[in-house]
Amino acid sequence: MSINPYSLTIDLKACIMKPFKKRTQVRLSSLRDYFMDRKAVDDMLSSGKDLIIYEYFEYSNPESEGHVNIGVTIINPGRIGKEYYMTRGHYHEKSAAEVYLGLSGEGIILMQLKDGEAQALKIMPGKIIYVPPHWGHRAINTGNEKMIFFYMYPSNAGHDYQLVKEKGFSKIVIEENGLPKIIDNPRYKSRN
Amino acid sequence: MSINPYSLTIDLKACIMKPFKKRTQVRLSSLRDYFMDRKAVDDMLSSGKDLIIYEYFEYSNPESEGHVNIGVTIINPGRIGKEYYMTRGHYHEKSAAEVYLGLSGEGIILMQLKDGEAQALKIMPGKIIYVPPHWGHRAINTGNEKMIFFYMYPSNAGHDYQLVKEKGFSKIVIEENGLPKIIDNPRYKSRN
Repeated sequence: MSINPYSLTIDLKACIMKPFKKRTQVRLSSLRDYFMDRKAVDDMLSSGKDLIIYEYFEYSNPESEGHVNIGVTIINPGRIGKEYYMTRGHYHEKSAAEVYLGLSGEGIILMQLKDGEAQALKIMPGKIIYVPPHWGHRAINTGNEKMIFFYMYPSNAGHDYQLVKEKGFSKIVIEENGLPKIIDNPRYKSRN
Repeated sequence: MSINPYSLTIDLKACIMKPFKKRTQVRLSSLRDYFMDRKAVDDMLSSGKDLIIYEYFEYSNPESEGHVNIGVTIINPGRIGKEYYMTRGHYHEKSAAEVYLGLSGEGIILMQLKDGEAQALKIMPGKIIYVPPHWGHRAINTGNEKMIFFYMYPSNAGHDYQLVKEKGFSKIVIEENGLPKIIDNPRYKSRN
């Protein structure tokens, strides 16, 4: 499919990218099964606080080889129990990389292969993260302000959210003595 | 080919991206045939000034579908005659997009199809430019400081520099009364 050149604008003060084709706000209630401390989630939800954990703006292009999708993700600062606010995380269905560029705030990009092998890299303004094909990826805000980053991936990558939902990530990022710490996820379900 | 996750750092003060796999400095002498005013080029060169017009840092990945190459381009401020400093420009060999994100300074991304149809979009910090497949692309620094931008494209895109060398771009960007102006390129060789 043929499209014309265009430009988008990232406004870091207003925390938006415009124009966009999709704006998605992800609230705590839809992330209940992703956090370690389910009681902390339920306590917050039962007190009527279904906060926005993160949101993203996406400008998608034709799903054909050679095109890429671009967008901006904004993760609010905060924790559920000891665990920092984070994205759901996903794998790509096809062999496709993803690139992040940190724009504001600081955090960790957690990546893992389907066998559970994990890697974590810090992200902050000016830092580029390369997520190679086959590595699942999740972003975690370990700072005190909004964490904002630009992302890009081949538009025919496809998204597999199911595997993360079923197995979780092998590592989680918690706060300990005021600092982020990467520990084994007690809820992780390895393949065997 | 399988690779592991990694991160790169863009340092806007030092004007570098590190680590990199390739650092390329492009001097005026190798751009002689790209500027409109050849006498202005020759005058500068004969006075011993073979200045660096632009440079780029690239971190290339495997040339297989699903991978992307990433890098940072820095164009110095200045003009050759009336024409602003610019990159050589190229087409991709395959049907492959390119994405730019402005980081510092300001300029214009000039794009054209092989039949000469042209589009120009402004770039500045926070501005994303989407160059769809089949559009040749060139970056032009129209400001008074270094213009720095991040770029990304599918790593199997391939580069065709020959067509731009032979035909040129149908438009050029010159300074007139202190402002950038896009005009027809008197040296452009249309296909017929």
